[in-house]
Amino acid sequence: MIANEIREKINSKGASVIRKMFEEGIVLKKQYGDDNVFDFSLGNPDLDPPAEVVNAIQELAKDTSHGCHGYMPNAGYPETRTAIAEKISQEQGLKLSGNNVIITVGAASALNCVFKAILNKDDEVIVPAPFFAEYRHYVSNHLGNLIEVPSKEGFNLDIEAIKSKLSEKTAAILINNPNNPTGKIYSEADIKALAEALNENGDRTGRYPYLICDEPYRAIVYDGAKVTPAFQYYKNAVVVSSFAKDLSLPGERIGYIAINPQSDEPDEFIKAATFALRVLGCVNAPAFFQKVIAKSWNAKVDYSSYRNRRDKLMAILDNAGIEYYRPEGAFYLFCKVPEKFNGDDMAFCDYLKKYLILGAPGNGFGGKGWFRLAYCVSEKSIVNSEKAFVKAMTEL
Amino acid sequence: MIANEIREKINSKGASVIRKMFEEGIVLKKQYGDDNVFDFSLGNPDLDPPAEVVNAIQELAKDTSHGCHGYMPNAGYPETRTAIAEKISQEQGLKLSGNNVIITVGAASALNCVFKAILNKDDEVIVPAPFFAEYRHYVSNHLGNLIEVPSKEGFNLDIEAIKSKLSEKTAAILINNPNNPTGKIYSEADIKALAEALNENGDRTGRYPYLICDEPYRAIVYDGAKVTPAFQYYKNAVVVSSFAKDLSLPGERIGYIAINPQSDEPDEFIKAATFALRVLGCVNAPAFFQKVIAKSWNAKVDYSSYRNRRDKLMAILDNAGIEYYRPEGAFYLFCKVPEKFNGDDMAFCDYLKKYLILGAPGNGFGGKGWFRLAYCVSEKSIVNSEKAFVKAMTEL
Repeated sequence: MIANEIREKINSKGASVIRKMFEEGIVLKKQYGDDNVFDFSLGNPDLDPPAEVVNAIQELAKDTSHGCHGYMPNAGYPETRTAIAEKISQEQGLKLSGNNVIITVGAASALNCVFKAILNKDDEVIVPAPFFAEYRHYVSNHLGNLIEVPSKEGFNLDIEAIKSKLSEKTAAILINNPNNPTGKIYSEADIKALAEALNENGDRTGRYPYLICDEPYRAIVYDGAKVTPAFQYYKNAVVVSSFAKDLSLPGERIGYIAINPQSDEPDEFIKAATFALRVLGCVNAPAFFQKVIAKSWNAKVDYSSYRNRRDKLMAILDNAGIEYYRPEGAFYLFCKVPEKFNGDDMAFCDYLKKYLILGAPGNGFGGKGWFRLAYCVSEKSIVNSEKAFVKAMTEL
Repeated sequence: MIANEIREKINSKGASVIRKMFEEGIVLKKQYGDDNVFDFSLGNPDLDPPAEVVNAIQELAKDTSHGCHGYMPNAGYPETRTAIAEKISQEQGLKLSGNNVIITVGAASALNCVFKAILNKDDEVIVPAPFFAEYRHYVSNHLGNLIEVPSKEGFNLDIEAIKSKLSEKTAAILINNPNNPTGKIYSEADIKALAEALNENGDRTGRYPYLICDEPYRAIVYDGAKVTPAFQYYKNAVVVSSFAKDLSLPGERIGYIAINPQSDEPDEFIKAATFALRVLGCVNAPAFFQKVIAKSWNAKVDYSSYRNRRDKLMAILDNAGIEYYRPEGAFYLFCKVPEKFNGDDMAFCDYLKKYLILGAPGNGFGGKGWFRLAYCVSEKSIVNSEKAFVKAMTEL
């Protein structure tokens, strides 16, 4: 017998629309040919991993040393933890050690570990909307309540609205920066104001919520944009990230958690999150790719081709008459559903599917009336999609 | 702020004693030298992976095809699912398809996915004791209650005691076969009687509990012993396993779930467990090793050397005067704490640590008064441990 809650979730209309689109896309491509389906459903990076990663894989494949595929400490190989500490030290401008870091099974597992570690039943996690749809599950898995706070015009943080939700029940605020689905990068002023609000809450209630910065797109930014280092502004800040997007390794499941060493109890936090990683059954991040990452974490994919793709897709949408937010990072375009659909993003995505265009409805992201196009697909696919977009909009 | 429950768990005396021993072992080895520490704490297989695995790794390392490290469907690559279906079909004598299988991040993640999929709040999971200590967490993570039922003499199932615990609240019974920590293999008669009890419960209450068979040691058996194929006896049977032990790949985190195609709702079950894998943040099993396994799942480590190690360690314990259960499978010896310690297994394990012998107290496994020695270590380490065991027992 399946659990009631799970049965409801898997059978609900909104359930895993993105993944369903991705899996439908595989079927449609078989039916119509790869070139005729325009699959913007999923953030599955189209660029290949950089040469450093490929070289590390090939070198490590020769390793047959005893125990090289065995267990290691749950938090990961010391050399991988040290490498990530170096990465975060550079990003945050503040010295971390390997003991401030845990290697996880991707950023999604990292978030589950953090929530398992910090949430008491009915604790609250505040998230500015729109947000990555899976956050709902990551919080409810561990009995927390996700509190959605709509963002302001231009997807800027609504600090006053966030303040009004802060209380002694607030375990964390979760920001995705650059944001999926919008491509928004929060301004330094917004991060600073957010930190002040969190400190005020701490001074008033005794609880300084964690500021969880989910940053898998940190390296993928355009036009000189920068992601503000939150450790500079707030003690209880945590970075959660992965190599899924910036090194194009989403299937290999290597992520990490890094805690601000100036936070209230960094060692207890790391202990708790490591415990969570273990008991949630991940046990440790995959051994082989931990070693690949220790050798290649500092490599870069050529992100300029994502900028080209963004620019091409924006031009196509301009031409077709679809409005969107101009992304400053990541590889998503968040677009407005045409007026005729009255804000029904599910219906409009179904409509686009008839033209073999796969996008993700905004509703799941807390962005009703919008839809997301992931442009981490081949340039050819983007160029070829123009006719389909124009046709779809003409035949509205 | 760490969650209260987690803070209690990480600071409790019994918490993760095994892992603590393993991590202490690393430190002790640095201090005293590898050869002078006898680390029987953890089931970290000492045998190297077979040639087929090494060849598959080296071959796949050359693969630079587009998207080879990308996302795939959450349940895994179709070819890996088909390979596991073939494996389970052989083991269970009953035809499975890839659709009856999910690839997971090790068996531990597989169990978390199953419990997330089937447990309503306060549902019960019955487990014969002794059992793998982590089961407690895997069940409580998803709000179930673990009901321990002590086994009979010789660790045979106490069917009558199990029957007395079955009710409409019973979501599952979980058996580890061969058993960790005892090395017990349950008899065909016991499995048959268990299936009858579960069917009776179903007929009486309408709920046919899942029979979850956790079988990572299935291939590691001695003296011609065989693990009974549960699918032959009970419809709602599930196999959960991994390649951690039989292919010596515990760090790579490849496990799987296989459902009896004759069960009540196999497709709904697979959908629910796949959903659980996704939302618990594993998303998918690591891509590279899924492909390694598709090529090498049928390989075998030479398990006879585990038999040799078992026999050597049994002789040493005989010589030192330590009683144990003679294991029929897996690579653990479950031993009685000497009378002088009055059943205090924690204290005796602390005592052994003074002689640089690391074992795991039985209490955590629901086997108070016993302790576990994992003999999946080098033969040399076993041979060299004799003096330490004899000295420890002489100086009691």
